[in-house]
Amino acid sequence: MYQSFDTTADPSKGPARLERLRRAMKMKGLDGFIIPRSDAHQGEYVAKCDQRLAWLSGFTGSAGFCIALMDKAGVFIDGRYRNQVRSQVDLAHFTPVPWPEVQPGNWLSEQASAGQKIGFDPWLHSRAEIERLQKDTAAAGLALVAVDNLVDQVWSDRPARPTEPITVHPIEFAGQTSADKCTEIADELLSRGLKAQVLTLLDSIAWLLNIRGSDIAHIPVVQGFAIIGDDAQVTLFTEDGRDGLDALAGFSIRPTRAFGPALEALDGPVGIDKGSAPFAVAQHLDAGGVAYDWNADPIVLPKARKNPTELAGARKAHLRDAAAMVEFLSWFDASDKTSLTEVDLVENLEEKRQETGRLEDISFETISGAGPNGAIIHYRVTHDTNRRLADGDLVVLDSGGQYRDGTTDITRTLVVGDAGEDEKRCFTRVLQGMIALSRTYFPRGRSGRDLDPIARYPLWAAHQDYNHGTGHGVGAFLSVHEGPQRFSHISEVALEPGMILSNEPGYYRDGAFGIRIENLVVVAEATCPAGGDSERALYRLETLTYVPIDTRLVIADMLSGEERTWLNTYHATCREKLSPLLTDVAYRWLQDASAPI
Amino acid sequence: MYQSFDTTADPSKGPARLERLRRAMKMKGLDGFIIPRSDAHQGEYVAKCDQRLAWLSGFTGSAGFCIALMDKAGVFIDGRYRNQVRSQVDLAHFTPVPWPEVQPGNWLSEQASAGQKIGFDPWLHSRAEIERLQKDTAAAGLALVAVDNLVDQVWSDRPARPTEPITVHPIEFAGQTSADKCTEIADELLSRGLKAQVLTLLDSIAWLLNIRGSDIAHIPVVQGFAIIGDDAQVTLFTEDGRDGLDALAGFSIRPTRAFGPALEALDGPVGIDKGSAPFAVAQHLDAGGVAYDWNADPIVLPKARKNPTELAGARKAHLRDAAAMVEFLSWFDASDKTSLTEVDLVENLEEKRQETGRLEDISFETISGAGPNGAIIHYRVTHDTNRRLADGDLVVLDSGGQYRDGTTDITRTLVVGDAGEDEKRCFTRVLQGMIALSRTYFPRGRSGRDLDPIARYPLWAAHQDYNHGTGHGVGAFLSVHEGPQRFSHISEVALEPGMILSNEPGYYRDGAFGIRIENLVVVAEATCPAGGDSERALYRLETLTYVPIDTRLVIADMLSGEERTWLNTYHATCREKLSPLLTDVAYRWLQDASAPI
Repeated sequence: MYQSFDTTADPSKGPARLERLRRAMKMKGLDGFIIPRSDAHQGEYVAKCDQRLAWLSGFTGSAGFCIALMDKAGVFIDGRYRNQVRSQVDLAHFTPVPWPEVQPGNWLSEQASAGQKIGFDPWLHSRAEIERLQKDTAAAGLALVAVDNLVDQVWSDRPARPTEPITVHPIEFAGQTSADKCTEIADELLSRGLKAQVLTLLDSIAWLLNIRGSDIAHIPVVQGFAIIGDDAQVTLFTEDGRDGLDALAGFSIRPTRAFGPALEALDGPVGIDKGSAPFAVAQHLDAGGVAYDWNADPIVLPKARKNPTELAGARKAHLRDAAAMVEFLSWFDASDKTSLTEVDLVENLEEKRQETGRLEDISFETISGAGPNGAIIHYRVTHDTNRRLADGDLVVLDSGGQYRDGTTDITRTLVVGDAGEDEKRCFTRVLQGMIALSRTYFPRGRSGRDLDPIARYPLWAAHQDYNHGTGHGVGAFLSVHEGPQRFSHISEVALEPGMILSNEPGYYRDGAFGIRIENLVVVAEATCPAGGDSERALYRLETLTYVPIDTRLVIADMLSGEERTWLNTYHATCREKLSPLLTDVAYRWLQDASAPI
Repeated sequence: MYQSFDTTADPSKGPARLERLRRAMKMKGLDGFIIPRSDAHQGEYVAKCDQRLAWLSGFTGSAGFCIALMDKAGVFIDGRYRNQVRSQVDLAHFTPVPWPEVQPGNWLSEQASAGQKIGFDPWLHSRAEIERLQKDTAAAGLALVAVDNLVDQVWSDRPARPTEPITVHPIEFAGQTSADKCTEIADELLSRGLKAQVLTLLDSIAWLLNIRGSDIAHIPVVQGFAIIGDDAQVTLFTEDGRDGLDALAGFSIRPTRAFGPALEALDGPVGIDKGSAPFAVAQHLDAGGVAYDWNADPIVLPKARKNPTELAGARKAHLRDAAAMVEFLSWFDASDKTSLTEVDLVENLEEKRQETGRLEDISFETISGAGPNGAIIHYRVTHDTNRRLADGDLVVLDSGGQYRDGTTDITRTLVVGDAGEDEKRCFTRVLQGMIALSRTYFPRGRSGRDLDPIARYPLWAAHQDYNHGTGHGVGAFLSVHEGPQRFSHISEVALEPGMILSNEPGYYRDGAFGIRIENLVVVAEATCPAGGDSERALYRLETLTYVPIDTRLVIADMLSGEERTWLNTYHATCREKLSPLLTDVAYRWLQDASAPI
């Protein structure tokens, strides 16, 4: 199993660890220390050795940070984690702080006294973050001090930095050689007048070098840093002692400890990514007297625009994954559902994906939330929370696989017995939003912001909504959450052909039920249908995910003719595409599940 | 009749007038002169004496300008007027220039020679406009020179400045005294540290002083300028010799010629509107050594948020106007349609509005476009273009009335005989978009940009679209086009309760047919229906316009259950609200026209 159901948070250990940290702070002459959830690469998942926030406080959310002072420790958590944090940390020693409503600088200004020194690890914060903090604490007379990580000093059994093998991501999946990619990026650097670009985002490095790894759960990247010169030469800085290095060619490899000195020896001007480059990168460049520009990582956009090979791979991976989902759904429907638990669903689904013989990892920890747990948007089932399915439960099942040819992400809402009328109305509205976005065409130049309301509209019209974006970008055998494109009120990035995104509206009623329906889609040139305006240049969204949507939850009368046609056509396509890939049992289930309504 | 159908453009007179202008240019030592369509108030309609562009060139569009050089005269027109301009100007003497694709500065840089002087009237251009022009012509070595208007010098029978009576807009319609408004604006000036605000937008002045006039067709404003001090005292600068001045109180009136000297005598800092204040205002302030800030006219937003009295008035005006529309539609349906022309429709409709006894003016020139004329988005019917209706024609009829209690604007698409299947499909999509926007709820803080795609979606999904915004703001017995709110891809202004907008998606097939359906709506607080999320703060759009939509053009199978319910409920409401206001004939027509589908 790639997924574990252990309760990783142990509130009982936090106080002693906090005490050890405070002794280390005292020895350093510090009055406070900041412990972020993020590592040096600002990714969503981090290696075990980088799970400092969870180790110290017990809190395991995917975002947040702790500021430890001598007499108080604030754990800053966003709206998703308001409840979770209270069960994961010892509230006698850690104080949850609502963030971003309360900004760390303001909190520090109130809690700390003039002249006090607050330490931070310059590898774990961007410059913007530290500058904001400096600005917000200046009036209170606090000093921010970059120091070696104090948690690492007191974390005695801290896991080693990962040294998993590095594998080549072959051209049959990548579609473009690393040499070609490097030349394109070097040309971009030349056009911007840059001598080199520093790369600290792990998926940018993996994409550029056509390498993959398993240093971090669920994201097949290699932990490290890289520098690409305007001569297209790349040096990867990563941990020593890995297997698989002999097969690599086309770039240099040096140990991680050589990264800082290498930065100091660069010829400027050098580009570093404004949003994510660690403060320490700028420190090293400053130390070496190297000029630099805060720019946007030039790999982010080319990586987001999948090439035809990557798209062909994505289509294959999605059908394989869909077949596994259908095997799972047919098993589920044949089961005595009220004998099953949330964990049973996760285990069976991962098994079905394993049976494809191609699963490299799950692409994130499956969300399996039944009944009221479905209303917790980022629910993670553990043995402690594991709910036995009850009659009438809706189950939000959000999961995905990492395959060499593509990354998948799919949510289906299952039902145990009969759903209530209200649940069906809400489900139908979510489905209408998801269909609306699937069917949309849109003029070139529009961004995710312009399409986000289309998916929300059926809920809005019923005075309902959901507190998350409508969709995120997805990588090609890389991160399941990939920027810059997304369907979101705040996304101004123009959508371009080849960009893969999720289309996942939902609806959540606290303490009662949750609903989410998610397919992946890819931005494509639209060919004009008969009767359309052939002079207009429009894009459309090609659906990648073909798994039946439970029509027992749909109130057919609420659908327009076009919505109904879309749904029936979608199901006919599921049948057509998946039938050859299924066991007899699943094949028969699919015939029923994909019947027109 | 408020509307005329004369062909106002006379291409034959342009060349001689251009020649007289060139003689005046020569006497002034100028090599060029700019003649904008706009007046000093940047409004959509201008007084007869300000129709310099039409007088000189023959072009009567609602936007554009001419740059006359000694050997060439460019008429800059946007996409709407590409065809119209070619029939209105003498192409041997005037050259149409596509704008904004070609910017005037770039055109001038190519056409004029280094050292040449280009004159402009500083009252007719904003500073931003002139600065852009200076920047774009600097490299070519051109000089821009502010001069008295040369067209006015050579236009021998130029109409006098209007001196129509000024009437009080009473509290029963305004809902707030002018004194109250002035105090609120003065408080705003104090909070911004301004001693005064210069007002040059005519509807801002009319709103602030609760006055109305008839200096300009279709917009009941008084031509003039105003200054409000931080002591809430206002001076109106306008033409002498008007009736109705005795009834006015609470502010001073001075002649227009006193405005410039008054500006020079102000205590600064003074606010002037960045988007619209004439260049000359800044010149006078500079001449007087008065400090000023380019800000946003502080009246625009309060004016946009209609108060409860204005909203009550708008509802009444819309019902009165709707009754006139229904009288018209019942007459139309009973007529031998193919014996009618576009002009007949305009005349009958204006008559029906006159018969309400309350019509002050039409709110703009009715667009009555049958068959292919309907595809011309800003079509103006003249005796020359007037089309006799033909079997199968769709007719776009876009019109409105000015009543003391409110301004209306409505479009209905009529049909002669039976429409084709394709026309019906397109009509149904436009209707779906219009219904979708009518039904929407949306979170506070969203702007017109966020809602615009909702109205376009049904067309987008068929690879169709329309080349205009989805809706504009509307005033309260003021301009039918009022900012800042609109439903548009480029509108970032947050929608607020009380703002009135049009909801008018359309579809246009060049040379074939046009479709538009328009209601006015007002932003309102949403009350949460049963089953909605009561903790969410949402707004909704209250419909003001209640006139049947021709169900013979609707393909009912394309509608969702909710769309059909909306349409049937809308029609039932039309019946309920309008029945008491109608003649027997129209009442019987309404019973049929509002039958459920």
